[in-house]
Amino acid sequence: MNRFFLKFVLLNMISITIIGTGNIATHLFDAFMMYDNLKVIQVVGRSKNSLCYFSSKIDTCLISEKIKKAEIYIIAVSDDSIPEVSNYLQGYDALVVHTSGSVPIINLSKNKKKGVFYPLQSFTKGKKVNFKTIPICIEATNKNDYELLKNIAETISDAVYKISSEQRKHLHLAAVFANNFTNYMYTVANDICEENKISFEILKPLIAETVLKIEKISPFEAQTGPARRNDIETMQRHLEQLTTKEKKNIYKLLSEAIQKKYGKEL
Amino acid sequence: MNRFFLKFVLLNMISITIIGTGNIATHLFDAFMMYDNLKVIQVVGRSKNSLCYFSSKIDTCLISEKIKKAEIYIIAVSDDSIPEVSNYLQGYDALVVHTSGSVPIINLSKNKKKGVFYPLQSFTKGKKVNFKTIPICIEATNKNDYELLKNIAETISDAVYKISSEQRKHLHLAAVFANNFTNYMYTVANDICEENKISFEILKPLIAETVLKIEKISPFEAQTGPARRNDIETMQRHLEQLTTKEKKNIYKLLSEAIQKKYGKEL
Repeated sequence: MNRFFLKFVLLNMISITIIGTGNIATHLFDAFMMYDNLKVIQVVGRSKNSLCYFSSKIDTCLISEKIKKAEIYIIAVSDDSIPEVSNYLQGYDALVVHTSGSVPIINLSKNKKKGVFYPLQSFTKGKKVNFKTIPICIEATNKNDYELLKNIAETISDAVYKISSEQRKHLHLAAVFANNFTNYMYTVANDICEENKISFEILKPLIAETVLKIEKISPFEAQTGPARRNDIETMQRHLEQLTTKEKKNIYKLLSEAIQKKYGKEL
Repeated sequence: MNRFFLKFVLLNMISITIIGTGNIATHLFDAFMMYDNLKVIQVVGRSKNSLCYFSSKIDTCLISEKIKKAEIYIIAVSDDSIPEVSNYLQGYDALVVHTSGSVPIINLSKNKKKGVFYPLQSFTKGKKVNFKTIPICIEATNKNDYELLKNIAETISDAVYKISSEQRKHLHLAAVFANNFTNYMYTVANDICEENKISFEILKPLIAETVLKIEKISPFEAQTGPARRNDIETMQRHLEQLTTKEKKNIYKLLSEAIQKKYGKEL
């Protein structure tokens, strides 16, 4: 690297401090470390134990200690802890962002320059992720800060979206349906299989195909099944088969919703 | 091909007639045509029009005409039409199977040799499928017929399962949860995105990850979200955000089911 280029790189380097040591903090740290233009200065945690993973690779400190100066502080802690952590950063003239899907930007009330850096994915501890395909939803209260966030986000991901606090709140709710409730549907299917000594493996190609379909057509168009074709006899038989009142209620409510959706619009 | 080998192939060739011209019939036909040991003799349909796709490739005939002799007749028609079609095959001393997930084997009452050949997948017209990964659930009333079905199934797929009529009934119900209801969850998520001018694309990597997770761990272990962690405040806020009573009811019922499942067992 020649001197001119070195100067250019140093000038364009963004110094980042991560506050938090959980799943999102760890995955962001790993992603940032891959790029020369992102310089993680410090990782801040509640206890020496929680900082173990980071301290062999980078400077670390406790939240109660003196936190180093950086251009941006990324708070990657649980929703409940965001106000407390942001208070620690009151005196710092830097951009402070959180990574939560459901906390509005204004909750960073004590920080002059604020933003949100929300990677929309369900992270699993220890499972490496490819950040390039993970959507990152960003928001900031002024243009310069927004550009800085965009720069960081576009370095690690090819899917960066400008999303307001109001939109993010709804996106988070949509994600509950798309991820949490979908997963619960798998649990019910798994339970039915287990009760009848059927391998859950048999359903996995169908589950994969259900997702592949909505790559090409909308979920509205992709809908199939007894409720979609108003097959009363099959639905009645299914209701009789279900072993708990709760599962019967779920089957009934979702079938009615599907029938209504298509009865109305077809 | 030398004469000895030719004789061997002809002796081991299974002659098949497909009755039906819809999605499953077409996909099975395409799959069978790929293998030398499977010989499709005829495709039988209701109208000349519906037979168009097949008639350029193979002998076809109408259901009301004289159907050629084959070792096995595969009825791939709608559930309601199975009894009628199987009646047409009363006089034939061959194995008669249907491809339905929810019709018991005994419904083929007029046929001496009966079976089921149920490929568990959601087929889309015009979309090529790789049959190798599609589970095929087979059942027959005697051992020889079962072996014949197994032979055909294992030729086209690497995932062949022996599934009784009783099990198949429950598997079909489990598939409604894993496929139809899951797809409806995507529709609700899509609606929420549209209402708030958010691209549904943002949710797709999350949806893909939800499926990838259950490759490694059970859906019970994979569950996350506000209901799973009993986050009353977030659930309350989500309920207020939802714009219809129906969606509120679905959110409430599914959240309660998740809370109950984990409250009880943790």
